[in-house]
Amino acid sequence: MAHRGLRVAVVGASGYAGAEIVRLLASHPCAEVALATSGRSAGRRLSELCPWLHTDLVLSDFDPASLRADFTFLCQEAGFALEHAPELLATTRVIDLSGDFRLKEPSVYERFYQRERPKGAADVRAVYGLPELTDVEELADAKIVANPGCYPTAALLALMPLIASGTVVGTPIVDAKSGVSGAGRSRKETDYLFSELSGGFKGYAMVGHRHTPEIEQMAGRPVRFSPHLIPAARGIEATIHAQVTKPPSAEMFQAFYNGRPFVQVVGSPPSTKLVHGSNLCLINVDYDASTEFAVVSSVIDNLVKGAAGQAIQNMNIMAGLPEETGLPVSGVWP
Amino acid sequence: MAHRGLRVAVVGASGYAGAEIVRLLASHPCAEVALATSGRSAGRRLSELCPWLHTDLVLSDFDPASLRADFTFLCQEAGFALEHAPELLATTRVIDLSGDFRLKEPSVYERFYQRERPKGAADVRAVYGLPELTDVEELADAKIVANPGCYPTAALLALMPLIASGTVVGTPIVDAKSGVSGAGRSRKETDYLFSELSGGFKGYAMVGHRHTPEIEQMAGRPVRFSPHLIPAARGIEATIHAQVTKPPSAEMFQAFYNGRPFVQVVGSPPSTKLVHGSNLCLINVDYDASTEFAVVSSVIDNLVKGAAGQAIQNMNIMAGLPEETGLPVSGVWP
Amino acid sequence: MAHRGLRVAVVGASGYAGAEIVRLLASHPCAEVALATSGRSAGRRLSELCPWLHTDLVLSDFDPASLRADFTFLCQEAGFALEHAPELLATTRVIDLSGDFRLKEPSVYERFYQRERPKGAADVRAVYGLPELTDVEELADAKIVANPGCYPTAALLALMPLIASGTVVGTPIVDAKSGVSGAGRSRKETDYLFSELSGGFKGYAMVGHRHTPEIEQMAGRPVRFSPHLIPAARGIEATIHAQVTKPPSAEMFQAFYNGRPFVQVVGSPPSTKLVHGSNLCLINVDYDASTEFAVVSSVIDNLVKGAAGQAIQNMNIMAGLPEETGLPVSGVWP
Amino acid sequence: MAHRGLRVAVVGASGYAGAEIVRLLASHPCAEVALATSGRSAGRRLSELCPWLHTDLVLSDFDPASLRADFTFLCQEAGFALEHAPELLATTRVIDLSGDFRLKEPSVYERFYQRERPKGAADVRAVYGLPELTDVEELADAKIVANPGCYPTAALLALMPLIASGTVVGTPIVDAKSGVSGAGRSRKETDYLFSELSGGFKGYAMVGHRHTPEIEQMAGRPVRFSPHLIPAARGIEATIHAQVTKPPSAEMFQAFYNGRPFVQVVGSPPSTKLVHGSNLCLINVDYDASTEFAVVSSVIDNLVKGAAGQAIQNMNIMAGLPEETGLPVSGVWP
Repeated sequence: MAHRGLRVAVVGASGYAGAEIVRLLASHPCAEVALATSGRSAGRRLSELCPWLHTDLVLSDFDPASLRADFTFLCQEAGFALEHAPELLATTRVIDLSGDFRLKEPSVYERFYQRERPKGAADVRAVYGLPELTDVEELADAKIVANPGCYPTAALLALMPLIASGTVVGTPIVDAKSGVSGAGRSRKETDYLFSELSGGFKGYAMVGHRHTPEIEQMAGRPVRFSPHLIPAARGIEATIHAQVTKPPSAEMFQAFYNGRPFVQVVGSPPSTKLVHGSNLCLINVDYDASTEFAVVSSVIDNLVKGAAGQAIQNMNIMAGLPEETGLPVSGVWP
Repeated sequence: MAHRGLRVAVVGASGYAGAEIVRLLASHPCAEVALATSGRSAGRRLSELCPWLHTDLVLSDFDPASLRADFTFLCQEAGFALEHAPELLATTRVIDLSGDFRLKEPSVYERFYQRERPKGAADVRAVYGLPELTDVEELADAKIVANPGCYPTAALLALMPLIASGTVVGTPIVDAKSGVSGAGRSRKETDYLFSELSGGFKGYAMVGHRHTPEIEQMAGRPVRFSPHLIPAARGIEATIHAQVTKPPSAEMFQAFYNGRPFVQVVGSPPSTKLVHGSNLCLINVDYDASTEFAVVSSVIDNLVKGAAGQAIQNMNIMAGLPEETGLPVSGVWP
Repeated sequence: MAHRGLRVAVVGASGYAGAEIVRLLASHPCAEVALATSGRSAGRRLSELCPWLHTDLVLSDFDPASLRADFTFLCQEAGFALEHAPELLATTRVIDLSGDFRLKEPSVYERFYQRERPKGAADVRAVYGLPELTDVEELADAKIVANPGCYPTAALLALMPLIASGTVVGTPIVDAKSGVSGAGRSRKETDYLFSELSGGFKGYAMVGHRHTPEIEQMAGRPVRFSPHLIPAARGIEATIHAQVTKPPSAEMFQAFYNGRPFVQVVGSPPSTKLVHGSNLCLINVDYDASTEFAVVSSVIDNLVKGAAGQAIQNMNIMAGLPEETGLPVSGVWP
Repeated sequence: MAHRGLRVAVVGASGYAGAEIVRLLASHPCAEVALATSGRSAGRRLSELCPWLHTDLVLSDFDPASLRADFTFLCQEAGFALEHAPELLATTRVIDLSGDFRLKEPSVYERFYQRERPKGAADVRAVYGLPELTDVEELADAKIVANPGCYPTAALLALMPLIASGTVVGTPIVDAKSGVSGAGRSRKETDYLFSELSGGFKGYAMVGHRHTPEIEQMAGRPVRFSPHLIPAARGIEATIHAQVTKPPSAEMFQAFYNGRPFVQVVGSPPSTKLVHGSNLCLINVDYDASTEFAVVSSVIDNLVKGAAGQAIQNMNIMAGLPEETGLPVSGVWP
């Protein structure tokens, strides 16, 4: 095992995204989790709360004043990072997995997240960390990175080559579907019980989901976005329907992502299952000549490329490592 | 139990749709299955091939010359009805569950089904049997009914009130998702194995699916349609994204389906699980003011309202019975 | 539709068992739900809480003093029936779906249910209502029936023919597996979330489950019982391993259940899916000559034969109707 | 990345076990797949057949005469290894994942696998490779290892500490349950379609399954074994019910597996989901005082500890590496 030089803190380690960071970093050659916190469980072993993790980590209280780490992953609800980032940045670089720093316009944040941005937050200059679409130099230098939402990751990787080609007409449609783990580990309503979801499929938040402005911000135009719930634990599929003035091609997408290890263009609509546990995004490109629409389907693992894996990819870039360091590509199948 | 006056034949009784007709008719007060056929299994008991069915029916060979029944359900691959309907119509009324008689234009049929329509078929005047959207008088008199496809049923019930309102601009998008039973019982490729599908979600036939022209024919305009596969046995969800000049409303949909027992407008995006085993179609209506799109989500059970249940609803109408006779409305939950 | 003479009350109608009673009675020719109650939701429509049910029922408070019904189904946690049955029996016959009246020995009840039996309960003479194993005459006359647990139903139907044959040696093993709905609709712990259960299988309460003494009471001997959780909403499978002095046979089981409509002996290990929504119990009988064990596998739908369906079967018998009245036999497949 | 010194051949790389070996070896620091074969697909890229694998491997024909590798994994049906092992052993050490070399008694093999052992096979001295129960020195020196069956791995790890304690009375019961991937990737019968298995649970081969003699051989006594099918892709749970003269304890199991990295004793019945993608076996130990039975539940991932992972563990031992080299312990959850 190589020297594990980077010391990492995971704040909120017993949720799905935090635990996935701990799992993935266990096979990272250059980083190790030095500190893990959990709101209500300080003093307990992480493996008690997450028995699938085989680690000796004992959970601490979150104490920003004393936190020392090369990188800190914040895996908390919206509001937490806005409150604590200014203090944390004095002693650690931060990757925030919430929506707190993703939206440039404070008023948009306040409308979609229904909370005010505290004054101190205005001074924090976060970089939006979707490495295939963000200026990598800027990411490398960032003190704090806003890790993208899971839906925006799947949607934007499929959509941006079209937008960049200048051929899109009107409002692109993003019809997206997610595994249930996207709801997190603490949603204990009836709606999230196994018996209520198994064998069923449904839409939710069909209009006004908070990931909409995040997609629109990078797309630079209004986008029609609706999410749905797949009866599976992991995976996001996004189907883009966009009217275009010219047929898109797989080659155009391949050229757009040339040299990037985590986006692959495939020859048929991919299954979310192909990227189970993987940091890849697979994309299929079709063209409907009769309506003149591009039809692009992308899949990611919402907890890997859509959260923990992308966060580590961002850390790699910030640390000057190859972006793929320690991240899995082949999926766990079947 | 009331008198079971109608004698019914089910051709292809050991597939999912045929078996579902047998199951549903077991609690129909006015009809009973007098004849069941299956291509390769004549002489065996239906319950051997479909052990969930508790029936004494013994499978026969299909012999159109000797078939006597008030109603015959054809549950076979495309081509079968075109070949046999002319002869059958001499002795029985027919409800065909394939695509053979759904498309008015022979050339469209030939393109999407990749087979020629035989000459004799031109004389057969089938009525398209989506009772909430078809002229019921015409259905009542029909000698042969083309039972709609599962996707077109879900899509059209959600789309037509918008079309009828005259507010739709441009190409409506139908992003549809189906349980795996839609593929039928005889698709024994690797792709349909449990291990390959469980826990995954994917699109397929994203462009040019054969249900596209069926939707467009009734919509009277081009429609952008893509289907996906849900990791569940049953259920179809269709999300319609349609740019509109005026916000749609639940009331408008309710008025459109006023008095019809099998379409209900609900207050939030419904789950396919709510209609498991039911002949209902549930519809939710949203409006995205920022992009001026109507967002309509409908769910059906692909084997009931999308196949066997709708076929029985058509039979009821053809027989002069109330259309809901013998058909379940409440879903099997959880 | 025949005259629906019997007036039925369902106490706890928004849980899985209560809602299933409402669903099943909708197609019962001689009974109708006149009253439905729900602890915290009086005044709301049942269909709001259970949107898969299409009914106009409005939930009432539970008021034993004013409750008038031919039959009352109690679908509540343990303790409720013990408290209210004495008063209820003045005005209605009762079928209790909890464990309150299943165990003859008060001390056994108190140990396994960890609550005391109130004094008044001693006068209540309940009949254990597993119609294929109980004296039907006694059931027909009962004022109050203790509806069996789901596991005991599956286990005892598979076990009792062996016991009755006098060939069992030593302690029979019941290794049982249940769909998640057996946990009920109000278990909102992390453990019951979709994401935590999907794709996994595990045992629980491997020793000392409260259904153990219920099985032992009828078996008349100690039984080794362990339950497990299937990643599916419905269904119980019980595998009995019992050392025997003589090979069992399918014929012996068929003779044991001769004339009973809801138990069928089949020729291979049945799937729980075959009885999805059905009141049947399917049983397969094997013999392991090398160890001299009988191996018997039974399946039921835990919410039908294991709860609501069996409760209605008991009501039918109490009302002098054929026991199969209004109950489905064919399963909803796939 | 350390030097990848060991050259490995995978024969049958496009099945589930073979593909899992390829996936796991991608992160092994000391081995790399130099050759992959597939019966009918020579010349195609492995990633075409297994699109979840991101590898440049091109499939070859199997040619034992020219095969050169430090280790060869045989992932084929029974019979293949018996035919080819004698020739292969001249140029490579072999780990066979079939049942060909697991059973010492030729007559038992012939009865349970219904094929004759060829004469040449008698000279091949295979070591049974369940490293926690086999003499590790012998394994280290083996030319050919018989990789255990998935059920025997789960069953024996749970059972052997009891057997070793000398407290077991009579016939132990192994009631085991497996995910569907255990059936392999080429079983394309109706029975293995998604629609037929989803949401259901059933037993199969309740008596006489070919893994029975494999369990009995190591247990040194008759064992009552029945397998079942879980509606999930991966995972095996085995519940052992064994009458004992003395209560077992977790400590006894911990002592038995002291120092072994892949067996952990836990405090409650574990879920198969906890070891999804992991090479761990988790074991819970209970005692039923009223019947004097030990109740032990173990879980493994059938494709990892039950096949590919254990095969690599065996390779590690044969190569003189730490047995845990390159093998994952934390599960992919949720």
